[in-house]
Amino acid sequence: MTRIPRSHPRYASLVTREALVAAHRHGIVVLEGLIAHGRGEAFDYLLGEATSACALVAERAAAAHLVAAERPVISVNGNVAALAAGPVARLAKAIPARVEVNLFHRTDERVRRIVRLLAAAGARDVLGPRPDARIPGLESARARCHREGIFRADVVLVPLEDGDRAEALARMGKVVVSVDLNPLSRTSLAATVPVVDELTRALPNIERFARALKARPGEAARIVRAYDRGGNLAANYAFLRWRLSQSVRTAKGGRAKARRKR
Amino acid sequence: MTRIPRSHPRYASLVTREALVAAHRHGIVVLEGLIAHGRGEAFDYLLGEATSACALVAERAAAAHLVAAERPVISVNGNVAALAAGPVARLAKAIPARVEVNLFHRTDERVRRIVRLLAAAGARDVLGPRPDARIPGLESARARCHREGIFRADVVLVPLEDGDRAEALARMGKVVVSVDLNPLSRTSLAATVPVVDELTRALPNIERFARALKARPGEAARIVRAYDRGGNLAANYAFLRWRLSQSVRTAKGGRAKARRKR
Repeated sequence: MTRIPRSHPRYASLVTREALVAAHRHGIVVLEGLIAHGRGEAFDYLLGEATSACALVAERAAAAHLVAAERPVISVNGNVAALAAGPVARLAKAIPARVEVNLFHRTDERVRRIVRLLAAAGARDVLGPRPDARIPGLESARARCHREGIFRADVVLVPLEDGDRAEALARMGKVVVSVDLNPLSRTSLAATVPVVDELTRALPNIERFARALKARPGEAARIVRAYDRGGNLAANYAFLRWRLSQSVRTAKGGRAKARRKR
Repeated sequence: MTRIPRSHPRYASLVTREALVAAHRHGIVVLEGLIAHGRGEAFDYLLGEATSACALVAERAAAAHLVAAERPVISVNGNVAALAAGPVARLAKAIPARVEVNLFHRTDERVRRIVRLLAAAGARDVLGPRPDARIPGLESARARCHREGIFRADVVLVPLEDGDRAEALARMGKVVVSVDLNPLSRTSLAATVPVVDELTRALPNIERFARALKARPGEAARIVRAYDRGGNLAANYAFLRWRLSQSVRTAKGGRAKARRKR
């Protein structure tokens, strides 16, 4: 493995990348997950690798939905486990919510490895190994889930979810909270509360809001009512467009400077 | 491997993804290359997965530089070989240019596999296995190259190149032609002719222009002089911003429709 110099302009992003590569070598992350991570990286780069004000609003709404839920569930795939096993375990404890491993490229061995990783990070009674229900409208292994987990959940947090499954869960009438850096993805469009933020920033934010709202059910209910999904998505789009114009300005400046130096 | 239904909204992109995954299993593409591919996918998605008018202008300028060059070289890494061994071989023949395998994560075995893949696609006398020179300013294996290839080249085509190496080649005074879907990347900013297009669209376009310009050296020289790098990059930025606003419009329409259906 290449040692990354701290001086590298994209140090944090490179370290995360190496973590995912290592998780692949440990049978946690599939090859397709690495490509998906790259797509997220590109959007995070455009967003400036920081939580936007509109993402924070969505994270608070996500927390309000999760603490107000009767049967909240956090769905975990390989990339989520590799990047955020600890934050998932802490959020599940704070809400409290069940954790269910739900894989697009499912093998029993991979489910077991991910369950072990989550358990080591402090998650309890993780579902996934013995699915006994199916999400309607999805073919094959992708549909498999637990009756006491995702199947009967009223609110599901689906970080880094694919579009088909997010849409299928929304069709089941569930409140779907997504965490996806692409505000234009089918997942973001299908979600009840689309959080457009990077996973390891989003989960601790949601956890903090959840802890604060747990003691104040009236406030949680108010936030759920007041959350304006369309307005929030529109703000995310506007922010992305603004960031892009800022990046262009920076690139032009940097380019001019680099040219003068030659 | 999952069979992808042709009806999937992102069929072409998924097929390319599977090709890269297969190339990884054959020791051609490294894990980091899969993540890098995802980043490109995100930008191609924003660009509408088609060659823009400004990309076409850059591709013509790239062809003009390559046919006017004394020692043109096409630099090939694992992702380039996996996605476009055939187009690389045909472009090298059309110019004609040398082909050199140049890897960030270099092992002799990987170089040999990629050379074999290129040779099978019709590329001749591929350089890479026995480097005898170094690109100044780069540490370790990434700097290794051939004296009769990249080291002495006057024009280098570097598709899917990393920023450090693109900058190092530019510092050597070479004309650097990049193919990179991110118009804001350090590679695009360092290149003499940044082509902002997907590889398998860009290379055949450059080849067609190269064939047309070979017989007309005066016209090639005129295009080299007339190419306005700054203006072209600015047009690429404007196009990306416009595409983003279009995608938002489509997403809003689709979202409104999906909500009405529920």
